[in-house]
Amino acid sequence: MREKAEAFIRQYYQESQLEGVSDRLEEVEKQILDRGTYDHRPDELSYGAKVAWRNSNRCIGRLFWKSLKVRDRRELSDPSAIFEDLMEHLDFATNDGKIRPVLTVFSPSTEPTQTVRIWNKQLIRFAAYRQYDGKILGDPESVAFTELCESLGWEGKNTAFDVLPIVIQVGNQRPEWFEIPKDKVKIVPISHPASDCLDELGLQWYAVPVISDMVLEIGGVVYSCAPFNGWYMLTEIAARNLADSFRYDLLPVVAERLGLDTGSKRALWKDRALLVLQEAVLHSFETAGVTLVDHHEASEQFLEFCRIEAEKGREVQADWTWIVPPTAGSTTGVFHREWKNEVLEPNFFYADPAWK
Amino acid sequence: MREKAEAFIRQYYQESQLEGVSDRLEEVEKQILDRGTYDHRPDELSYGAKVAWRNSNRCIGRLFWKSLKVRDRRELSDPSAIFEDLMEHLDFATNDGKIRPVLTVFSPSTEPTQTVRIWNKQLIRFAAYRQYDGKILGDPESVAFTELCESLGWEGKNTAFDVLPIVIQVGNQRPEWFEIPKDKVKIVPISHPASDCLDELGLQWYAVPVISDMVLEIGGVVYSCAPFNGWYMLTEIAARNLADSFRYDLLPVVAERLGLDTGSKRALWKDRALLVLQEAVLHSFETAGVTLVDHHEASEQFLEFCRIEAEKGREVQADWTWIVPPTAGSTTGVFHREWKNEVLEPNFFYADPAWK
Ligand code: HEM
Ligand code: HEM
Repeated sequence: MREKAEAFIRQYYQESQLEGVSDRLEEVEKQILDRGTYDHRPDELSYGAKVAWRNSNRCIGRLFWKSLKVRDRRELSDPSAIFEDLMEHLDFATNDGKIRPVLTVFSPSTEPTQTVRIWNKQLIRFAAYRQYDGKILGDPESVAFTELCESLGWEGKNTAFDVLPIVIQVGNQRPEWFEIPKDKVKIVPISHPASDCLDELGLQWYAVPVISDMVLEIGGVVYSCAPFNGWYMLTEIAARNLADSFRYDLLPVVAERLGLDTGSKRALWKDRALLVLQEAVLHSFETAGVTLVDHHEASEQFLEFCRIEAEKGREVQADWTWIVPPTAGSTTGVFHREWKNEVLEPNFFYADPAWK
Repeated sequence: MREKAEAFIRQYYQESQLEGVSDRLEEVEKQILDRGTYDHRPDELSYGAKVAWRNSNRCIGRLFWKSLKVRDRRELSDPSAIFEDLMEHLDFATNDGKIRPVLTVFSPSTEPTQTVRIWNKQLIRFAAYRQYDGKILGDPESVAFTELCESLGWEGKNTAFDVLPIVIQVGNQRPEWFEIPKDKVKIVPISHPASDCLDELGLQWYAVPVISDMVLEIGGVVYSCAPFNGWYMLTEIAARNLADSFRYDLLPVVAERLGLDTGSKRALWKDRALLVLQEAVLHSFETAGVTLVDHHEASEQFLEFCRIEAEKGREVQADWTWIVPPTAGSTTGVFHREWKNEVLEPNFFYADPAWK
């Protein structure tokens, strides 16, 4: 803890060209000796969260790391108050479609009785229901979590796009669940600009991806609840969430509606159906006025980020397998680059789900 | 050398369930003591080359490793004879379109005066000419090598698809170049089954990719010349050779002919043009009766290879960044897998080009 704290404070003072680092280090040291931990000042927290984003090796969106809006909510420890605050996060982030990157920090793990955990993977995510014939209605990724919500007393509407409730746990208390009001969830209906092949499928996706199951570590302090959002990259929705065979698995459906022969291996039907989904999602977000970046622009933005970091004398760390988009990879500049993949701190980490 | 030799011989005898490994090891040991190296028996050479393919971490085509035809040409040391033999390799591999995986081994580096080097990257590859306006006609990858050929006295025809001559060097002798007769090079003209957007571009590609610039290492012996070929995977031609901006760079050309707005960032014009190229190459190889595998089938074949290897108790090593195809990545099974990426031997390795 002491070493990590010192390294972080020094980095902050140096990068931000602040004076008085030794005074601050003394303070921090004293707190750690007294309590085994220390409190970040609001400006440290804000800087730490931004740098955690800058250090996210798998994130292609890092050009905008400085613009992250950091909301300090360490004082909240009542589930209802936390839920209300998450609704504010959603509102501010959604911004009627002009999405803003936002992160909200709750009490760190060093205060066990107050530690906040959100049990959802993302604040907004669609439920999944196992049906009598064994098939799954909704987003297959959510099967276990949906069952958990049901066991807590939640009841879904049995559609393919039911928004799950938010499950919040403080300390060792019983988790509580809260239904998100409709007006907090911006939904984009998906249609294709030129083809009617998606009509009547009722496809839709939500506007704001808010990751809520990763922990944020800053200078040795672990924030077990620090939900954050950017805007979507096109392929996340069109090539993965709607297309993966273990998610909405829409490629065969779309291909059949396009009249393609899905039996024939060599007809590139998956590639063609995928392109249609991509066109549809891009068009639909544009029409709805919701921010979304396509993989070509995102790639250029990431390379711009790399140029700026190099200028600053910092070596970008990146995970090629995540940075390169899941389709049309070699048409993007990032495909033809390599990076070291060391994990710097501050950063976001996976944690065991609280409910497993 | 002794350790590698022993490990290889033991592996061969064990995997092939042969008797008499200690006799053979004694023999090998004696040769190494006498001459600092040893000769592979033809059966060892053949097994070694096949396993080198099986161990090629970046190759998605490994399901067929056992079927590799290995041609032992260690006795050849005359450039003309070597060239004639390479023409036989081409004939046998091309097989009128039903392509066969073939590898030809020449004299190893341990015999410096006889060491064979082919200076080409691939036996068949298209030339590149720098034009007065600075643009490049042909395959930009070949600029330096084409200039080299010209300095040796070769003259191209100044088309975008001139097949380069083969440059062969034995020991420290002057390299010699040989023009490949037209009837040895199967060429596939590229057209689209439904659209006329490629007409008059004169696109074409060759049927057989024969890698000629990697060294083959078996049991400590380095074969500096061991050209090998499989058949093409669709994306190698359509998504890389014809599409990369630093290769034939055809995406903007195709997109314009499709009437797409290439100025608009968000129109997915690269994705659409890429799909058209893929459809065209697939269709054209099919029409020409030339073996080619698409990325979906190749992915399934590779996963089948993984299953078989697991059954045999061998852990597959693979380089995810090369195994996953450069487009439609996440629609293929290999995208959702991970492998260790240790380099086993025998294997193929890069070598410094003989001419640089
Ligand atoms: C502003 C727009 C943003 C875009 C376009 C973007 C894009 C992406 C994409 C495409 C991925 C890969 C996701 C996947 O394949 O599952 C990713 C991962 C990630 N991003 Fe971003 N991102 C953005 C904002 C942010 C923000 C604000 C943060 C944190 C403050 C962040 C942190 C991360 C992290 C930690 C990962 C890895 C997630 C994991 O390992 O599961 N990103 N991002
Ligand atoms: C039979 C059909 C084959 C298919 C479809 C196939 C497919 C591929 C593909 C798609 C790549 C990546 C190429 C690139 O992105 O540049 C590759 C790489 C490779 N393959 Fe295969 N392959 C086949 C046969 C072979 C054979 C016969 C050998 C050797 C005996 C071989 C050894 C290799 C090696 C060493 C690499 C890595 C090349 C490098 O690092 O530049 N492959 N293969």
